[in-house]
Amino acid sequence: MPMPAKVVAGSGSLTIDETFSISTARCSDARMSRAAKRTQDRIGRQTGIPIRGGKAVLQVECGPDGDDESYQLDVSPGGARLKATTGTGALRGLETFVQLIEPGPNGFFAGAIHIEDRPRFPWRGLMLDVSRHWMPLEVVERNINAMAAVKLNVFHWHLSDDQGFRAESKRFPHLQELGSDGYFYTQDQIREVVAYAHDRGIRVVPEFDIPGHTLSWLAAYPELGSAPGPFEIGRTWGAFDPVMDPTREEVYQFLDAFLGEMAALFPDAYFHIGGDEVSPKQWNASARIQAFAKQHQLKDAPALQAYFNQRIEKILEAHGKIMIGWDEILNPGLPPSIVIQSWRGVDSLTDAANQGRRGILSWGYYLDHLRPASYHYGIDPPDVSNVLGGEACMWAEYVSAETVDSRIWPRAAAIAERLWSPRETRAVDSMYARLEVVSRMLEWTGVQHRASYDPMLDRLTGGHRSEALHVLADASEAQGLSGRSRAAKYTSLVPLNRFVDAIPPESESVRALEQAAKKPTPADLVLLRERFTIWEENDESFPALTELKPLSQDLSALGALGLHILDCMAGKQRVPANWVAEQTRELDRMEKPRAEVILGAVRPIRLLLQQLAN
Amino acid sequence: MPMPAKVVAGSGSLTIDETFSISTARCSDARMSRAAKRTQDRIGRQTGIPIRGGKAVLQVECGPDGDDESYQLDVSPGGARLKATTGTGALRGLETFVQLIEPGPNGFFAGAIHIEDRPRFPWRGLMLDVSRHWMPLEVVERNINAMAAVKLNVFHWHLSDDQGFRAESKRFPHLQELGSDGYFYTQDQIREVVAYAHDRGIRVVPEFDIPGHTLSWLAAYPELGSAPGPFEIGRTWGAFDPVMDPTREEVYQFLDAFLGEMAALFPDAYFHIGGDEVSPKQWNASARIQAFAKQHQLKDAPALQAYFNQRIEKILEAHGKIMIGWDEILNPGLPPSIVIQSWRGVDSLTDAANQGRRGILSWGYYLDHLRPASYHYGIDPPDVSNVLGGEACMWAEYVSAETVDSRIWPRAAAIAERLWSPRETRAVDSMYARLEVVSRMLEWTGVQHRASYDPMLDRLTGGHRSEALHVLADASEAQGLSGRSRAAKYTSLVPLNRFVDAIPPESESVRALEQAAKKPTPADLVLLRERFTIWEENDESFPALTELKPLSQDLSALGALGLHILDCMAGKQRVPANWVAEQTRELDRMEKPRAEVILGAVRPIRLLLQQLAN
Repeated sequence: MPMPAKVVAGSGSLTIDETFSISTARCSDARMSRAAKRTQDRIGRQTGIPIRGGKAVLQVECGPDGDDESYQLDVSPGGARLKATTGTGALRGLETFVQLIEPGPNGFFAGAIHIEDRPRFPWRGLMLDVSRHWMPLEVVERNINAMAAVKLNVFHWHLSDDQGFRAESKRFPHLQELGSDGYFYTQDQIREVVAYAHDRGIRVVPEFDIPGHTLSWLAAYPELGSAPGPFEIGRTWGAFDPVMDPTREEVYQFLDAFLGEMAALFPDAYFHIGGDEVSPKQWNASARIQAFAKQHQLKDAPALQAYFNQRIEKILEAHGKIMIGWDEILNPGLPPSIVIQSWRGVDSLTDAANQGRRGILSWGYYLDHLRPASYHYGIDPPDVSNVLGGEACMWAEYVSAETVDSRIWPRAAAIAERLWSPRETRAVDSMYARLEVVSRMLEWTGVQHRASYDPMLDRLTGGHRSEALHVLADASEAQGLSGRSRAAKYTSLVPLNRFVDAIPPESESVRALEQAAKKPTPADLVLLRERFTIWEENDESFPALTELKPLSQDLSALGALGLHILDCMAGKQRVPANWVAEQTRELDRMEKPRAEVILGAVRPIRLLLQQLAN
Repeated sequence: MPMPAKVVAGSGSLTIDETFSISTARCSDARMSRAAKRTQDRIGRQTGIPIRGGKAVLQVECGPDGDDESYQLDVSPGGARLKATTGTGALRGLETFVQLIEPGPNGFFAGAIHIEDRPRFPWRGLMLDVSRHWMPLEVVERNINAMAAVKLNVFHWHLSDDQGFRAESKRFPHLQELGSDGYFYTQDQIREVVAYAHDRGIRVVPEFDIPGHTLSWLAAYPELGSAPGPFEIGRTWGAFDPVMDPTREEVYQFLDAFLGEMAALFPDAYFHIGGDEVSPKQWNASARIQAFAKQHQLKDAPALQAYFNQRIEKILEAHGKIMIGWDEILNPGLPPSIVIQSWRGVDSLTDAANQGRRGILSWGYYLDHLRPASYHYGIDPPDVSNVLGGEACMWAEYVSAETVDSRIWPRAAAIAERLWSPRETRAVDSMYARLEVVSRMLEWTGVQHRASYDPMLDRLTGGHRSEALHVLADASEAQGLSGRSRAAKYTSLVPLNRFVDAIPPESESVRALEQAAKKPTPADLVLLRERFTIWEENDESFPALTELKPLSQDLSALGALGLHILDCMAGKQRVPANWVAEQTRELDRMEKPRAEVILGAVRPIRLLLQQLAN
């Protein structure tokens, strides 16, 4: 995963043992020897075999660093060969090879295969918001590692927002001194991340969101604002009224110097200026700004923002960068080179294409909504020219360094496949079957998306393991942004250490029960009955966690209902009149979120109930 | 855990929230500010609260660095106070404070309490063998972290053995160049570990095992041997014939220079020279060595070793070190200052005491035997004077960097309690109840003893999660040294990535079933019936892992038997004549190890069967 463009299975298999090694002697890209070492180490972790090398089992042949990501991989019992025009293509091929390794009765092996592969889109990104909650360097690096494993190639680093300014500026040190609570990346660390990503064939696109979402800038430099300060770092969510002043030359001088400093730090050709959710309030309220607007024939706030963007675009161009921004920056006054990142829908991509501009899709790929992988997998970039690809977005209102991995992975792998694999690769069941395997493979890259589950749950009961709590957790799913914002008590200082934070957005075990409930075989019936029995008895031993008690009671009721339905299906019980309708209403009630989680366990029961109704 | 010497519960509790901080302004030990920061970070992980500080909730008062480990801790609703004569005592008290924190309906808190505490023994160690399998720096450091959490205070670093020489020597670089396969600690790394341990109140005692267990030395410097070389690094286990030559002055000159170099690197007063399992074969076979023995009136090999030890002791003394060694070094010819570490039994400690010498107990604390925590907990150092304490020993024939944590933790915490807490603290059920909590708390120190379980199991099925495999794993227990050595196919190059390596030595869930089976309440019967049903049905969906199939079949048979016994107990089934005896024989058969694991599931069934027989 992502599924390659062309796969032809061969016969026989290649043994992977402690003598395994990768030869990159025929590569002209200097990154390849490090990549070979890294890949050997990862295969060592993934198999538990202490790889000592000695025999060049996988021969890599590639040209220099470059944009072409295609590769060809041949595995036969005698050895494997990876060929690519560029080192970047070879990096992609190494990841494919790693995924071919599986255990057999005689140890680990890779089955014989011929693969020809290339990406569908050249821009396959992950955006990480490190402002709303701070993400330490190791979080960034381990997620870049995992991105590489599923062939994502753009790390979009959302470095500033109302809640924190996260990059060190030597020109304007108050930005990090007063705008970050002390949590920021030094310039050395930024260079380290850029090099780390480049080694893995990943570009780093920085985002400094302007002129809105800038409370953290204004806390440091209030003179950039459209209204007098002082300003404070944001602690709550949403868009705030204070924004930068688009009318003053000093603001552009500041941004010219700042963007110049950052442009030198980030070698990528693209530079993201945000541009979303700019509040018109202070602009409309200022007589001075209104006078400026009138003088320049800028009829409203969007026109003022377009003026601001044109100025910024010229600054970025002077620093050798192509501007990229969210939907709102789309305006005919900007040059055709700029790129639009769509978050509000696909229309802006169509509009952009109509203006001859390029775009990338993020609407439908918002990981923070915690929707199922199948939802994201079903979103295809619109069928217009000029679409470069897409980006999964991880906004950080409701994630911390501890929980962010489980909100990104494994679902981002489904988006990665959507953007890499041919459009025709779209069978959801196959995706999920492979996703569950990839999820475990990703653990060997260092991401903690699975590792944090048990410790966070056991923490709720003070280290006293509660089996009943784990049973409820396996049957529940965390709500995303909208569900949590309705709880309406969060700020950036509220700990994210609750039940909802511990559990993932999708339950593997509920999915298995749904599969079993669709058209149950005798083995499925055994599985369902076993699980329903556990649910039915679970509330009896549920720990004293008041908030979760109603969910626990409902889970036991679901268990009892499930067992009753199975009895009815087996003809052991009659189905009373109106009973199905009554129970359906009860399921509707149980499916409503409580404690910010959804009882996923309702879904397999509903499937069974529907069969009883038919 | 370890249980303090004196505990008086108070009323009310102290809230732990994001304002929590530790004040060390009244400490004269420079380590304390780092310890405070570290402790705040750990409390942040353990609670999921992003600790920002602001309010000095825990006030620490302490004197300078020193040996006294006693402390006094008072927690009240208004704040907490920790007092100690030395910084070392304050470090111990901080660990106690961390363990007091638990979750409640209104967030995390520490209950009001008054504690006066001091260790029973001054020497409470963990020995780690890094020779037979290489343990990278991070393994060493995370285990030192966990040691501190349970108040162990001596890290005994077994740095050389037949299978590898793991410390860089600048005087004799062939040691690491030819004796380590490239896996060794640089002198900078060694200094880092010593400082890291000292920061946590832990001494580092290095061991360089001589004159036996020295194949890795001899591979580098064959001229040290008692017979002509060449020699190769050991790949198998046990004691080898080649040993150092105790008769040649060049050998002592070499060791003087080498030990001098190492003595400067390790500031601790003690220096371990091993001295165990010295094969007499080459000494007896050499006419030259025999002539030397005769000339010096050394009647046999032990006498020759005693001569060698006396020479080494003088060298160490000249370098300012006190010699410590295994049982075999005990000899009246050595000065009273030396310390005996007993591995073969308690007799050598009694003998040592009779000679006025000090000793530490390791017999009974061999973690690599994978015996239950209760076994180690029951071993008390002998009631003779001069016993400094004990050391848990982790020999590394059958552990790798990936599995070592799960072989040390949580069982070493039971040994830590034996050595710290009063002799009267010995209730096994209480120990286990606390051990299960401490095991989870230890995760926040960074050790991976629980984290590796799922990934290693899922690896066996190529990332396809098998619930049935996990059910068998929960019901099984790994065998230790003797069980695995009988399998007789291991060398240091064989991967430790099998089922036996993934599962821990003691199953928590089997223990819970044993507790339930002792005198089952109605709730216990529900638990037992639920679990036995799962076992009974488990083999049906067991994956194609040939080696484990017989275990899986037996587990299902145990499930069926358990259900039948429960029916008999409830009077629903008659117990046929001879049936109990028959089933007991069947249980005896099932309890025999297969695939190097024990089916722990037999134990609760046996308990129930015995009740049926009575």
